[in-house]
Amino acid sequence: MTKPLLLKNLRLMGTDAADVLIEDGRIAQIAPKINPTAEVTVEDCDSALALPGLVDAHAHLDKTLWGMPWHPHQQGKSLQQMIDTERALRHELDMDAERQSARQVALSLSKGTTAIRSHVDIDTEHGLSLHRGVVATRARYADVMQIEIVAFPQSGLMIRPGTLELMDQALREGADIVGGLDPCGIDRDPKGQLDAVFGLAEKHGKPIDIHLHEPGEMGAFSLEMILDRTEALTMQGRVTVSHAFCLGMGDQARVAGLLDRIAMLDVSLATTAPAARPVPSVAACRDCGIAICAGNDGIRDTWTPYGNACMLERAMLVGLRNNFRADVEVGWALDTCTTDGARVMGLAGYGLAEGHRADLVLVDVEAISEAVTQRPPRRLVLSGGQIVARNGETEATWQSA
Amino acid sequence: MTKPLLLKNLRLMGTDAADVLIEDGRIAQIAPKINPTAEVTVEDCDSALALPGLVDAHAHLDKTLWGMPWHPHQQGKSLQQMIDTERALRHELDMDAERQSARQVALSLSKGTTAIRSHVDIDTEHGLSLHRGVVATRARYADVMQIEIVAFPQSGLMIRPGTLELMDQALREGADIVGGLDPCGIDRDPKGQLDAVFGLAEKHGKPIDIHLHEPGEMGAFSLEMILDRTEALTMQGRVTVSHAFCLGMGDQARVAGLLDRIAMLDVSLATTAPAARPVPSVAACRDCGIAICAGNDGIRDTWTPYGNACMLERAMLVGLRNNFRADVEVGWALDTCTTDGARVMGLAGYGLAEGHRADLVLVDVEAISEAVTQRPPRRLVLSGGQIVARNGETEATWQSA
Ligand SMILES: [Zn+2]
Ligand SMILES: [Zn+2]
Repeated sequence: MTKPLLLKNLRLMGTDAADVLIEDGRIAQIAPKINPTAEVTVEDCDSALALPGLVDAHAHLDKTLWGMPWHPHQQGKSLQQMIDTERALRHELDMDAERQSARQVALSLSKGTTAIRSHVDIDTEHGLSLHRGVVATRARYADVMQIEIVAFPQSGLMIRPGTLELMDQALREGADIVGGLDPCGIDRDPKGQLDAVFGLAEKHGKPIDIHLHEPGEMGAFSLEMILDRTEALTMQGRVTVSHAFCLGMGDQARVAGLLDRIAMLDVSLATTAPAARPVPSVAACRDCGIAICAGNDGIRDTWTPYGNACMLERAMLVGLRNNFRADVEVGWALDTCTTDGARVMGLAGYGLAEGHRADLVLVDVEAISEAVTQRPPRRLVLSGGQIVARNGETEATWQSA
Repeated sequence: MTKPLLLKNLRLMGTDAADVLIEDGRIAQIAPKINPTAEVTVEDCDSALALPGLVDAHAHLDKTLWGMPWHPHQQGKSLQQMIDTERALRHELDMDAERQSARQVALSLSKGTTAIRSHVDIDTEHGLSLHRGVVATRARYADVMQIEIVAFPQSGLMIRPGTLELMDQALREGADIVGGLDPCGIDRDPKGQLDAVFGLAEKHGKPIDIHLHEPGEMGAFSLEMILDRTEALTMQGRVTVSHAFCLGMGDQARVAGLLDRIAMLDVSLATTAPAARPVPSVAACRDCGIAICAGNDGIRDTWTPYGNACMLERAMLVGLRNNFRADVEVGWALDTCTTDGARVMGLAGYGLAEGHRADLVLVDVEAISEAVTQRPPRRLVLSGGQIVARNGETEATWQSA
């Protein structure tokens, strides 16, 4: 580590101005006034608001086209069509997973993200090549970006024999989490897929994160099968369901019953808060004590032209989707991109307190709510005690090719 | 007007690079190559993409708190609560309508907006003071911002006697359009309110723009009453319904019937594409030939902490709300913020063609879809032939206090 760093005059989560001393990658001291010593680098923060490092808890680092020529999108957007299109385009376009994931990580640093859970495609066409690319990026950015890898059977597990073995191999080669998706909608075999996913989790002692786009009662059925296995295999606190659109269905009593069981089994949820799909209510989840975190999902990839890796923008979209207007509510939207993401990822020493990891995001705004609704360029981003971005630009050390 | 301006090397709506000569506020010539003469100012555009001026067809220039200290929002957000809160806060906070509307206009110029339809509150507590403030701003920015004013009975028309007379006065003092809102939900007297609104329109020979938040069948009922009067009074082509959440209801056959009648009567719609409310489908409206335009509605006001006046961001939100991913679809989202807005406002000489008003927005992106999804700072904004903003900043002449 480098010299200790003294941040002068910043407002932690909008509280009164304070000074923060950073040593060995940690927040060593927070006090109204800390006098600089000779061996300390001083950074005047000019009353900027400081947030903890942003957490992108649902990403796809292997998918982005960021930094490549504009890719025109065509119509035709069933889930199955988008999956097949992407598998083909990976060949046609020059989509190198190591290079592209590094680009997204560098971009994420510039926006203040310091931790990412990334699903990475595992399929019989691309084998482990995408996984290995992301593993290489993770190693390169290990000091400044905490990355979890989910071995993700994007093209299906049961319908593409050989995928299970590849997932097993990925879990031996650095994947942290067992992925799954739409056991009815894609695999047409909910029992088969979920038994396989939970079997892998048990074998490797790893947690689970399942994409569940299935709407309404079909989704609720799949969700119940996930909850059944979570209970039977005592996987409490180790299962995440991503999207869970079924929890946005109209039948409020049905949803309430599902939320109760999700809370009891300490299953967490990840959302992108899409405007065009039903979604779990953040307020309802909070009321039940369920950790609901947010992610940008794909950014500028073969699925979608949207996205810029900014988790303050994601917080805004969570806020808009949930009709959060009061400052306290907009704070909840931000929580999905900070503390709740950290809780789901199990990040140790997260948050703006002495002894914790020095991940800080500074923005020149008055209020937390203003940071979310206006999303100004990040004045300064620290990760693991290092300055990784300034005025919206990633520092040279951490730029990608 | 000043010297002619020669824009070199820009891509009009993403087509091949061309040069554009601007004289007397108009686009005088578009050609692959135009040679500069001595009396011409030359601006190299470096292959930037050029869009027509953006149109914010549903705004509230008298409401914004932009440039004022952060206003913390409290919970409690029924429509009636928000209306009452705002009327009180106009006194407590120093909300000068002329100053605040100028701030929003200057901000809008920096984002590339060159035309705004603004609803302006008329009520018995504030009389015509807000209206007169916006009229003053309109005069100041007349050369570079085309502003239409809707006399808007925000606090109700029937339930606050005296409001009708104030609206009548506003229409004599420069208001262009007769406003209305939620004839059932707010006024509790749909027949009374709509007869009054259409009566004013007939008396003054002005068009109509009615806020209709009412959902489901109640909204459809109010909408039908609006359509009945449009037909009876031959107001075809002169009525806009803003929001029209009822057209987002689940009963597709019911919606299709309403859309057919809306199309037949040439009634237009304005949307903000909110993520948390049902909305009219942009694609369905286009299919029927209905003009559906977009607006930012309130930005950073007592109703909402969101918003930054950027109509490219609004286009993105329209795209996300309608699940538009293909380039052609994202183009439709942009249309709601450009050509459809111009059609609803009846802007003469709108668009990137010779002889038309020189309102151009330049962005450094490859594709139209990229302009919408990434919303980069505007490289250059021209309005009425004048450079009004550069690199995201409003030019000094047009900055507000
Ligand atoms: Zn995903
Ligand atoms: Zn409005």
